[in-house]
Amino acid sequence: MTTDTPDMRTVHVALGSRAYDILIGGGLLASAGDTLARRFPGARAAIVTDENVAVRHAATLKQSLEGAGIATATITIAPGERSKSFAVLQQVVDEVLAARLERGDVVIALGGGVVGDLAGFVSGIVRRGMAFVQVPTSLLAQVDSSVGGKTGINTAHGKNLVGVFQQPGLVIADSDVLDTLPEREFRAGYAEVVKYGLIDRPDFFAWLEANWRDIFSGGSARVEAIAVSCQAKADVVARDEFEAGDRALLNLGHTFGHALEAATGYDSARLVHGEGVAIGMAMAHRFSSRMNLASPDDAARVEAHLSAVGLPVAVSEISGDLPGPERMLDYIAQDKKVSRGSLTFILTRGIGRSFVARDVPASEVLSFLKENLPS
Amino acid sequence: MTTDTPDMRTVHVALGSRAYDILIGGGLLASAGDTLARRFPGARAAIVTDENVAVRHAATLKQSLEGAGIATATITIAPGERSKSFAVLQQVVDEVLAARLERGDVVIALGGGVVGDLAGFVSGIVRRGMAFVQVPTSLLAQVDSSVGGKTGINTAHGKNLVGVFQQPGLVIADSDVLDTLPEREFRAGYAEVVKYGLIDRPDFFAWLEANWRDIFSGGSARVEAIAVSCQAKADVVARDEFEAGDRALLNLGHTFGHALEAATGYDSARLVHGEGVAIGMAMAHRFSSRMNLASPDDAARVEAHLSAVGLPVAVSEISGDLPGPERMLDYIAQDKKVSRGSLTFILTRGIGRSFVARDVPASEVLSFLKENLPS
Repeated sequence: MTTDTPDMRTVHVALGSRAYDILIGGGLLASAGDTLARRFPGARAAIVTDENVAVRHAATLKQSLEGAGIATATITIAPGERSKSFAVLQQVVDEVLAARLERGDVVIALGGGVVGDLAGFVSGIVRRGMAFVQVPTSLLAQVDSSVGGKTGINTAHGKNLVGVFQQPGLVIADSDVLDTLPEREFRAGYAEVVKYGLIDRPDFFAWLEANWRDIFSGGSARVEAIAVSCQAKADVVARDEFEAGDRALLNLGHTFGHALEAATGYDSARLVHGEGVAIGMAMAHRFSSRMNLASPDDAARVEAHLSAVGLPVAVSEISGDLPGPERMLDYIAQDKKVSRGSLTFILTRGIGRSFVARDVPASEVLSFLKENLPS
Repeated sequence: MTTDTPDMRTVHVALGSRAYDILIGGGLLASAGDTLARRFPGARAAIVTDENVAVRHAATLKQSLEGAGIATATITIAPGERSKSFAVLQQVVDEVLAARLERGDVVIALGGGVVGDLAGFVSGIVRRGMAFVQVPTSLLAQVDSSVGGKTGINTAHGKNLVGVFQQPGLVIADSDVLDTLPEREFRAGYAEVVKYGLIDRPDFFAWLEANWRDIFSGGSARVEAIAVSCQAKADVVARDEFEAGDRALLNLGHTFGHALEAATGYDSARLVHGEGVAIGMAMAHRFSSRMNLASPDDAARVEAHLSAVGLPVAVSEISGDLPGPERMLDYIAQDKKVSRGSLTFILTRGIGRSFVARDVPASEVLSFLKENLPS
């Protein structure tokens, strides 16, 4: 049992037979072995990680696991989105099988979103499903990608088009490991924290406006921000595990954001995912205001907070050339969340009042893009 | 609604939100378009098939689908077990994505077990799960592999080690297409029909003893045999979808059978799966008798029926050299169904009284193998 304190929180994801806990707090990495030994008695483990994370954290985790009597193989992939490929998938699958792990054994994802997406997919298909544990080491992964069970790889046809829904059996989010993140990466993850406030938690957004500096510096405010974010995502996922409806709310800022990521060729020097989401959220609020759904004051408030933490809010903040409005609309329409050709957006009636808008007229989007894109 | 007649049967697989029907009867291929249009309104389809089946049946199915207004792409793979590979998986995934199919669209497996296993896996991972329909064209696929949701590919580490549980939304088993099967392949599929009698349906086994010639020649006896087999498998799967317990009963004859397949290098000229299962079932009954669990008369009765239809019942019926008993025990112990090093077998207390026996002493198995293998 875990007793919640300001420095240690447990979020329960209520998914029936696939329910699981998210443990959040400082120092959890070093005690992960005991935690896993209690929850997966007799299991062995494969740690999947990338070269960057391995240097910082793999020894701590491996030592903790083996200290708790859990035999552990470590599988290291190259860092970056390019590892979300069929080739690396097959390689990691082969290494898990070579380690002779069985169905009750555990695949552990130690890393950010790429490692989690890939290792989760591997755990979902080896022996038609092994146990899976997420140990996210980026803020983005702790508050977003490690929760909800989406896993996958990219193909030439687009990102995340191949994968499975594979819920972890446990998520261990050590808030201290975020101290080693580059500031830009922490900020990008913070965009997703803001998103939960903007979807349906206006009080949380106000709390973020007041406390964001404490979150960036660590301690109990950071634990609180992660816990509320995980709870927010868990609530949506529990309502709609397989993305048939409400789960689309989590795409707030993502339709514009994904289009911008595609338009910049997924070049992280120009734009990382969380920055695209920040601009996308600002645009979603401005677009909602333009459609007379929300007050321009709300859009201004969102921009003010994102700007205060150092996140971009306008397309003009992206370096280099961008395609024109028509081409950008193509990127939006190719987004896989666009159902059967109609344009679906997450729009808002104000701070914390987002909703799924289907059949948004493409002409309105195009006019808006013309106003927002540098000419 | 389908009204059951002697020539047209519906078996319902009760899996809650993943429940589905198996339609069984002659001529169903030509009416598949209307069936799908009713059950998947507005969906498009990709038919995955192999070169041999394509020649005989792809045009009939495609014409039926397009006649019902279902736009259809056809993806053809090479026949045979070697197509259950990462390379072919990636190729089919790419072709489904290139056809721009979305989550609600349907992947149709038109073929035997290889096509079903591969196409099912594809449908389970493209966009994290598309709709899936099985149109099995072999007896083995109609009574076994198309029911129950196991999909997958092979790796250097073993068969079916990578895949997902992906239940179809519908199975269409046209009993007339079996007329085009080579006799040896029909017989091999029939071994799995016998298996259901031996697991827990002694009356069905007795009915098979009396009626097998009618099943081989077609008509309502064949429809009945397929329907009872599907119902038997559906009952087990409904009790244990993810193979945590009882589903292991379906492996009757398969532990010995898989070892024999491996020992013959999966050379179908020497042994096909159903033949391995036939020998395996005969061995499982002899071994049960040797362990004083069942009467030798039951083992003799099983052998008599399998022999009557032309199936092998002894290792000596396999052409060419085989490894010795110790090596064969290694093949058995490597079987993925062997949990954590202990030997698990499906044994029996008599016709239709099979059970899961865990911790079978390896020494007993070795002694039995020494008696049964040609020296």
